[in-house]
Amino acid sequence: MSEAPVPTGLFSGITRLDHVGIACRDLDASIEFYRSTYGFEVAHEEVNEEQGVREAMLRVNGTDDGGATWLQLLEPTRPDSPVAKFLERHGEGVHHLAFGTSDVAASAAEVGGRGVRVLGDGPRPGTAGSSIVFLHPKDCGGVLTELVQSAR
Amino acid sequence: MSEAPVPTGLFSGITRLDHVGIACRDLDASIEFYRSTYGFEVAHEEVNEEQGVREAMLRVNGTDDGGATWLQLLEPTRPDSPVAKFLERHGEGVHHLAFGTSDVAASAAEVGGRGVRVLGDGPRPGTAGSSIVFLHPKDCGGVLTELVQSAR
Repeated sequence: MSEAPVPTGLFSGITRLDHVGIACRDLDASIEFYRSTYGFEVAHEEVNEEQGVREAMLRVNGTDDGGATWLQLLEPTRPDSPVAKFLERHGEGVHHLAFGTSDVAASAAEVGGRGVRVLGDGPRPGTAGSSIVFLHPKDCGGVLTELVQSAR
Repeated sequence: MSEAPVPTGLFSGITRLDHVGIACRDLDASIEFYRSTYGFEVAHEEVNEEQGVREAMLRVNGTDDGGATWLQLLEPTRPDSPVAKFLERHGEGVHHLAFGTSDVAASAAEVGGRGVRVLGDGPRPGTAGSSIVFLHPKDCGGVLTELVQSAR
């Protein structure tokens, strides 16, 4: 694409595609696929007990807001977790998109004010100390969408 | 995410997440959703007759390889197109991920050499004069994956 940049983040505070969440059955195998195929390396791994996932973040590129775009590989840790249910219904594949903002509460309020349902009761802990909300996929053209504010 | 950057593109020539392809039934409605919800604007629209899609590219952010990350909204133009079949099976949602490279033929050869099936007989026309290949989703953890080289 060679067109001139278009200003973004005019309303919502969104300044980057932060990550793509990918559901997998075997995290280690998925990490090895992305490492050996593309050269992406794991920058961070953790278990998020609330969401019932073991996950790894692989950095793809830096972004012009000072952040980065990552692949987030997600393996369920229990059969009743959302990612386990996703795998049951859809098999492995893209689970969600996450847009980065410097103020997730403000962005969620803006987006919620435009009729998009924001799930839960406000921001909760995401990867590596980040704060996140999820938006209802039915209000987002079938795309489970996360808004994320990095730790700092 | 606050970890130090990890070098990427060590093997495959991949330097960015170029775009996320999103299948929709009504391109104009989808464009309006992303504009009014997040402030993303259309930078480019076209019809790709070979792939049977009408599409719009919305810029999300710039990337540190000098490119950008886009959302690519895809509406089928005929019922036998791959995107129409995807909508029939899955409904609206994320259709594919596209990784950017400066040499799609070389990247496809590298990736193909690691046992990932590269679809078709070499690069073909993508959005805005780009050259693209698709990789078999069964070899990519359920993710339909595109490699893309921008026009220039």
